[in-house]
Amino acid sequence: MQSISQYQDIFINYLQNQSIDKEPKNLYEPIQYILELGGKRMRPVLTLMAAEVFNASCEQALPAAMAVEVFHNFSLVHDDIMDDAPLRRGNQTVHEKWNINTGILSGDAMLILAYQYFEQYEPAIFRDLAKLFSKTALEVCEGQQWDVDFEERTDVTIPEYLKMIEYKTAVLVAAAMKMGAIIAETTTENANLIYEFGLNLGLAFQLQDDYLDAFGNPETFGKQVGGDIIENKKTYLYLKAISAATPEDKALLLQWFASSLEDSTEKIENVKAIFVRSTADIITQTAIEDYTMKAFETLEKMNIAEDKKLLLKAFGENLMNRKA
Amino acid sequence: MQSISQYQDIFINYLQNQSIDKEPKNLYEPIQYILELGGKRMRPVLTLMAAEVFNASCEQALPAAMAVEVFHNFSLVHDDIMDDAPLRRGNQTVHEKWNINTGILSGDAMLILAYQYFEQYEPAIFRDLAKLFSKTALEVCEGQQWDVDFEERTDVTIPEYLKMIEYKTAVLVAAAMKMGAIIAETTTENANLIYEFGLNLGLAFQLQDDYLDAFGNPETFGKQVGGDIIENKKTYLYLKAISAATPEDKALLLQWFASSLEDSTEKIENVKAIFVRSTADIITQTAIEDYTMKAFETLEKMNIAEDKKLLLKAFGENLMNRKA
Repeated sequence: MQSISQYQDIFINYLQNQSIDKEPKNLYEPIQYILELGGKRMRPVLTLMAAEVFNASCEQALPAAMAVEVFHNFSLVHDDIMDDAPLRRGNQTVHEKWNINTGILSGDAMLILAYQYFEQYEPAIFRDLAKLFSKTALEVCEGQQWDVDFEERTDVTIPEYLKMIEYKTAVLVAAAMKMGAIIAETTTENANLIYEFGLNLGLAFQLQDDYLDAFGNPETFGKQVGGDIIENKKTYLYLKAISAATPEDKALLLQWFASSLEDSTEKIENVKAIFVRSTADIITQTAIEDYTMKAFETLEKMNIAEDKKLLLKAFGENLMNRKA
Repeated sequence: MQSISQYQDIFINYLQNQSIDKEPKNLYEPIQYILELGGKRMRPVLTLMAAEVFNASCEQALPAAMAVEVFHNFSLVHDDIMDDAPLRRGNQTVHEKWNINTGILSGDAMLILAYQYFEQYEPAIFRDLAKLFSKTALEVCEGQQWDVDFEERTDVTIPEYLKMIEYKTAVLVAAAMKMGAIIAETTTENANLIYEFGLNLGLAFQLQDDYLDAFGNPETFGKQVGGDIIENKKTYLYLKAISAATPEDKALLLQWFASSLEDSTEKIENVKAIFVRSTADIITQTAIEDYTMKAFETLEKMNIAEDKKLLLKAFGENLMNRKA
C-alpha cells in the first residue's frame, strides 16, 4: 500500500498520459482544461486505494479511477453553468472561458468518455462497473435537482438535506471505493461494506465542507470564508441553527438570509454568532464525528488485514482534520 | 416480420409502459414530456427491424430501441438549448417550458438512463451495446460541435459537411440497426453490413432533409419551407450551389446569406432560384440516390433471406419518398 500523495502522483501521471487533445478542438480543449485544473483528486485516489485494500494492483484500477474523475469534472462543468459560477479552483469556469454551449457539449462528451474508460475491463467487470456508475450518476443528477429545488423552498427538513448531500456528494465517494472492490473481485459483502464506508465518509466530508465554509481559517481555507452565508445557502449549519436558535435569533437569521448586501462582513459576523449561540456549530461537529465513527464501524466488519483498516482509517482522519 | 407502423405501435406501447414519473419531479417530468412529444420513432423502429432481420424477436430488442430513442431525445433537448429553439414538434422545447438549467440536467439524466436500458442484456451483449453506444454518442457530440463551428466559417468544404452530417445524424441510424444485429447475435460481418446500410441511409436521409427544407411541398412538409434559408444554414444545397453557380449567382447567393430580413418570402424565392439555376437541386437529388443505392448494395452482400432484404429495401424507399 502507498501513501495518499503517492496515489495522487500515480493518478496524475496516468491522467497526463491520456490523449484528450483531439478534434474538434472546441469540444476537447475544454475537457483537457478542466481535467488539468487540479483539485485534490480525492475520488480517484479512493478507487486506487480500495483496489489495493482488496489485493488488486492500483494500476488495474486506473481506468476506473479516471472514469470517476472525468465524471466528477463533468458534474462541475454543468453545475457551474447552472450556478452561474465564474471561478473554479481559482480559474475561469469552462462556460466563462468559452461559452455556455461549449460547457454543455463538452460536459456531455465527458459523461460519455467516463463510460468508455470501463471498456478496458472484461465483460463481467465492465458490466458491474457501468451499472454502479449509471446508478450513481443518476443519483448525482437527482441530488443536484434537489439542491436546485431547495433554493426556492423555506421548509427544507434536515432529513431532506441529508438525502440531498448523500446523492449530490456521498454516493460518488462510495461508488469510487466500491469500484476498487469490483476490480479486485472481492466478496459482495466487502464491496457493500466499502460502499457504506465511503457513503458515511462522504456525508462527513460534505458536512465538514459546510462547517469550514463558516468556521474555516481564512489563511488555510483556500476559498472565501462565509461564501455560503453570502449566497444564503441553506446548509446543515443554517438548518440546525433555525431549529435550535431562540425565537429572536431565528427571526434575525431569517432576516439576514433574506438580504443581499454590498458589504457582507457584518452579515457573516452576525450569522456566525447565531450559529455559535444556537450551538449549531457544535451540533454540526458532532454530526461529522458521528458519520466518521459510523464509517470506521463498517471498517471493523470488513474481512481484510488490520494494516489495511488502519490505512483507510488514517485517510478518514486526514479528511476530517483538513483545513481546506 | 411486421410493417413499419406495427413496429411503431409495439415501440410506443413499450415506451408508454416505462415508469419515468419519479422524484424529483423537476428532473423527470421534462424527460417524460419530451419522450411523449412523438416523432416518427424511426431510430427505435430500425433497431426492432434489424433484430428481426437477423432472427431475434423484436421484444428482445425493445430495451435497446428505447436506449436509442432516449439518447436521440437527449440530443434534441441539449441541441435545442444551443440553438435557442422555441419549438420542437410544434410544442415548446424543454428549456422554454421549464428553463435552461432544467434542460441541461434532465438531458444529462436522459443520457444516463439510455445506458441503463442496456443492463437488461447479459454481460457480453451489454458490453457490445454499451461500447457501440458510447462510440456513437461521442461522434454525435463531435458532429454537433462541427455544426456549431461551421456556423462561423465561410470555407466549409463538401467533404467536411458530409463528415459533419455523418457524425451528427447518420452514425446513430447505423448504430440503431447494428444494435439489433448484436442482440440477434448474428455474424460480425452481417453486423458491420447493417451498420453500413444504416450509415448510407442516414446520409441520404439528412440530404433529403436539406432538400425538402427548400423544395418540400408546404402542404405536406410539416415545418416551414425555407427554414434553412432564413437561418443562412450552409446545407448541402447551399454548398453545391456556391461551387456550381455562375460568378454572378454566387455573389448574389453570398449576399442573400449575409442578410436577415423581416419578410423572407423574397429571399427564399431568390435563393431557391439560384439552387435551381446552379443545378444544386439536381446534384443533391443525385447524391441522395447515390447514398440510397450504396445502402442497397450492402444489402446484397448480407447473408439473410431474400424477403428480409426486400423489407429493408422497402423501408429505404419509403424513407426516400417521404414528403416530411
